[in-house]
Amino acid sequence: MFYGEYLINAQGEDVVAGVRTPHPISDLAKEMPAAHKELMKVRSILEHHFKDMQDLEFTVEEKRLYILQTRNGKRTGHAAVRIAVDMVDEKLITKKDAVRRVPADSLAHLLAPVFDRQSAKAAKKIGSGLAAGPGAACGRVVFSAEEAVMRSEKGEKVVLARIETSPEDLRGMIAAEGILTSRGGVSSHAALVARQMGKVCVCGATGIHIDYQKRTLSANGTTLNRGDYISIDGTAGEVFAGEVATAPSEIVQVLVDRSLDPKKSITYQEYAKLMKWADEFRTLGVRTNADTPEQVANAVAFGAEGIGLCRTEHMFFEGDRIDAMRQMILAGTKDERARALAKLLPYQRGDFIGIFTALKGLPATIRFLDPPLHEFLPADHAQQSELANKLGVAAEKIARRVHELHEFNPMLGHRGCRLGITFPEISEMQARAIFEAAAEVQAKGIKVRPEIMIPLVGFPRELKLQIDIVRRVAGEVAKEKETKLNYLVGTMIEIPRAALVADQIARDAEFFSFGTNDLTQTALGMSRDDSGSFLPAYTELDIIDTNPFASIDQKGVGRLMEITRDLGRKTRPDIKLGICGEHGGEPASVKFCHRLGLDYVSCSPFRIPIARLAAAQAALEN
Amino acid sequence: MFYGEYLINAQGEDVVAGVRTPHPISDLAKEMPAAHKELMKVRSILEHHFKDMQDLEFTVEEKRLYILQTRNGKRTGHAAVRIAVDMVDEKLITKKDAVRRVPADSLAHLLAPVFDRQSAKAAKKIGSGLAAGPGAACGRVVFSAEEAVMRSEKGEKVVLARIETSPEDLRGMIAAEGILTSRGGVSSHAALVARQMGKVCVCGATGIHIDYQKRTLSANGTTLNRGDYISIDGTAGEVFAGEVATAPSEIVQVLVDRSLDPKKSITYQEYAKLMKWADEFRTLGVRTNADTPEQVANAVAFGAEGIGLCRTEHMFFEGDRIDAMRQMILAGTKDERARALAKLLPYQRGDFIGIFTALKGLPATIRFLDPPLHEFLPADHAQQSELANKLGVAAEKIARRVHELHEFNPMLGHRGCRLGITFPEISEMQARAIFEAAAEVQAKGIKVRPEIMIPLVGFPRELKLQIDIVRRVAGEVAKEKETKLNYLVGTMIEIPRAALVADQIARDAEFFSFGTNDLTQTALGMSRDDSGSFLPAYTELDIIDTNPFASIDQKGVGRLMEITRDLGRKTRPDIKLGICGEHGGEPASVKFCHRLGLDYVSCSPFRIPIARLAAAQAALEN
Repeated sequence: MFYGEYLINAQGEDVVAGVRTPHPISDLAKEMPAAHKELMKVRSILEHHFKDMQDLEFTVEEKRLYILQTRNGKRTGHAAVRIAVDMVDEKLITKKDAVRRVPADSLAHLLAPVFDRQSAKAAKKIGSGLAAGPGAACGRVVFSAEEAVMRSEKGEKVVLARIETSPEDLRGMIAAEGILTSRGGVSSHAALVARQMGKVCVCGATGIHIDYQKRTLSANGTTLNRGDYISIDGTAGEVFAGEVATAPSEIVQVLVDRSLDPKKSITYQEYAKLMKWADEFRTLGVRTNADTPEQVANAVAFGAEGIGLCRTEHMFFEGDRIDAMRQMILAGTKDERARALAKLLPYQRGDFIGIFTALKGLPATIRFLDPPLHEFLPADHAQQSELANKLGVAAEKIARRVHELHEFNPMLGHRGCRLGITFPEISEMQARAIFEAAAEVQAKGIKVRPEIMIPLVGFPRELKLQIDIVRRVAGEVAKEKETKLNYLVGTMIEIPRAALVADQIARDAEFFSFGTNDLTQTALGMSRDDSGSFLPAYTELDIIDTNPFASIDQKGVGRLMEITRDLGRKTRPDIKLGICGEHGGEPASVKFCHRLGLDYVSCSPFRIPIARLAAAQAALEN
Repeated sequence: MFYGEYLINAQGEDVVAGVRTPHPISDLAKEMPAAHKELMKVRSILEHHFKDMQDLEFTVEEKRLYILQTRNGKRTGHAAVRIAVDMVDEKLITKKDAVRRVPADSLAHLLAPVFDRQSAKAAKKIGSGLAAGPGAACGRVVFSAEEAVMRSEKGEKVVLARIETSPEDLRGMIAAEGILTSRGGVSSHAALVARQMGKVCVCGATGIHIDYQKRTLSANGTTLNRGDYISIDGTAGEVFAGEVATAPSEIVQVLVDRSLDPKKSITYQEYAKLMKWADEFRTLGVRTNADTPEQVANAVAFGAEGIGLCRTEHMFFEGDRIDAMRQMILAGTKDERARALAKLLPYQRGDFIGIFTALKGLPATIRFLDPPLHEFLPADHAQQSELANKLGVAAEKIARRVHELHEFNPMLGHRGCRLGITFPEISEMQARAIFEAAAEVQAKGIKVRPEIMIPLVGFPRELKLQIDIVRRVAGEVAKEKETKLNYLVGTMIEIPRAALVADQIARDAEFFSFGTNDLTQTALGMSRDDSGSFLPAYTELDIIDTNPFASIDQKGVGRLMEITRDLGRKTRPDIKLGICGEHGGEPASVKFCHRLGLDYVSCSPFRIPIARLAAAQAALEN
């Protein structure tokens, strides 16, 4: 296939400027047959030489062909994989070449649902935002998580539109086909959750005005009422009014939905071949960030070798759990708190049983409760009154507790292990849930390998105190259940102080996992959620090359990772090292982690193929 | 003077338990004359040996005297200085000994105003909080900055009571004798400002309930209405209802108020002797954090050798300036913003003229605008409407801008050099104000040595871009005024990334100043304002030795300072190094800075004597 355009008696800029309409390259065969023949010959030589599709620029002066420029052609993920696999089959390139030349990120296209092209062309575009979760989604627009859940339970497809999302919206986000926000960057809550769940997401669509009271969304002269159809393209960051037809990718149909026979999908077969080759070359492990059995199953289908980050707080939002969680937070005494925690224990244990079972013996890094407690309480007055009625307490009590928990900089506040230190009974309940679940699952003959991770450690003794609780509870459960429990205890490295005293922390930690989201925020003194007001200017002024929340800042954050590795290994030469920040699914960061000598990266399920390919490329680069 | 108690037929615990009333030591001369005589002899031997007042524990068994324990006696700042100076005069110890043995922190007592002892005994104590600004203050309680200013202008003495303070309260804090807050730790806004101004402050008095609407303060069964008298002791952290008589310390009367002849104050003379000796030994420079000519004059009287931190944002709150500042923030276009900045220029220039004049040739490190812009806009609805009327804009516009500027974690948000990068016209105005003031003052024959400091740099190019503006404006002003301007340009090191790439930053920076307040927040991932909810537990559980916001966390933050020093000197061997965080006035931190080899520490005016003494002690330790 050879495609192109040309202009007679013109310079390159005329083609680019678009003032004259160029001719298709096929016409050249008639107009200048000699030049056309030579061009075909040169193209063949170049494509064999570079072993890749070429993007050529040429001119013909006094019948002589001049090649001005040639470079490897740009292509979609589908095309990249197909061309690479075909060329190996045709023995034009080796498997190594194939693995090297498919841009790892382009695999996202292969996994994303897509809009029907004709349908999208006919649709009315009403706005655009950041492409935060690739793919296409269409459904009825709703403005609250509750309504998303309600309509989805009735079998309706919905798109959840929010000014911004919070953990309270989680159930609605799960229920929705896609998520649209008018505020927040590629690392906002909406974007993170969407990536983890493989949800389509457009965020920070600033031109779109969402009115919660009127329940309308208006942009570009169009107003949609709740229930009206909306379509969003999370690959391009576009928003359309009305219905645009979509379909899941064939790879997802084969691996996740199991609705398509792999023998019937050439796309899947080519993908599977490339992934097999990648796994032959890579040395870096690939795990997943997953909080539910379903996510685990998807991730394992995509090739995950375990869980690198299971966020236990996500387990406290579903159904009645949030009420018990809120009772725990509102508790005035240790006893009251213990009673509320006792209600949470069976839920949490049940979750872990599901996860351990889905893992089939693969290891699971489980993080203890991390976010500040105020995230679990409703922020607005009406919801506080509702909660008060439900729990049978005074609304004022809830308002007071919300006020008490208010923080100026919650990212740097009372969260992470600081919760487990001040409320050790929370860590105790979580440890018990994990070990009781482990005992139950291994009694069924399934191996269980929990790796308990204490978040936000900065001082060695913080870790020591939490580990004491874990080991004590493990001993108690092992005795009660008359079984042997195998587990590791370690910590996240997510604040600079932890990196600087990693030698001391490694005395107690059996593993380190880099929490590069928070490590980036603290090392750069830059709030992920607030950086949208200046990061665009920073890119424009060449202060930064790439968004540090998308790709690891290697000179700053990366330097802290090196320091941690060196100090950690000094104390404990075989310390296990991983990364569980969102960076774990970004190719340049994965390659950096390989060079750093980490044992594994962990990323959201839908980015696992990308991480596998990037890890293989890193191994081939070295 | 020998003072003590004893019990016959008893053990030490009986004395401590207080179940029996002990006898004064003078009775021993009668009851057991031999033992008493021997005790007197031993005391004399020990005090000559240790060259310090001794705190002795003894017992008499079968007429034989046993000395159980001896240690140097604890004393107030006044006593410590007096004893040390007297002993040098009596040739019992050397000047070095005297400097070594006065606890540097105890000088705070010498400078603080005091309550009349009888009067305090008679007063009704209604609560207690953190001792955040030493000294005693008495006045009528008010609950708003406006009222504090209004009453103070009428000649009334007031104590400003707030739940917590913000920069908007600054004028009221200046007008008040003392500041009382019911929320916030020793590093809260109230405490920081109080220390810098030498104001009496009790903060975080959690038992005191302040009701802004009723304008009452209630605690411990007592309710005070606005205008009622209240007295606070910032040395002990106590709060009294009613009037308790106070007086400024003699040293302040001599040096600051100039109302007392130094020849008439023995306390002053002893203080001056000790300070002279300290200066003979110390090698570390001592500068001040000061924002006004008055603070500069006080600091120089206390021995400051220049300004280490002049916070320009404090200059934007006074009088009409805040209106121009707000116009600047509300500006929709660059032109509008430039017009508002043009109004601010003469104010800022005037401030610098005052400061440079007061400095009489000493250097001044001036920091460009640092806080997030929302701090300059009113937060509540009523004040927003008022501002809208005043500026003639729609209240909605102000509300929208406040909303736009809202940040999840303002500490990590759009502030510091990020403001100067996105709004270069702000840096340009500030540079012009500094250089025009410098030209004017040096035309009068006073040497001017500005050191312009760019805050919150993390990426080398941030600094480069800001320095380009400074150098261009300096060139323009030098040409306009036909003069030569001498200045340095450097940066604060206050985020971990800056420390890690200090070698690159030092290519452009002529000096580094450690902003250890923010460096502590970022390196430890710990918000100063929010840490009150877990730091007490951290102390109790031995996770930390001292509050890292009071004394430098040497293993974490200190490690980053070492890295910075080494990398900075690698690029620029003569780079000037200082510290301008609040730690610069805390003895253990001052000693750490000496060992690190910094050129100077900078602290609030009333802590300068402490820093001078601690610096001398550090030099004698090494």
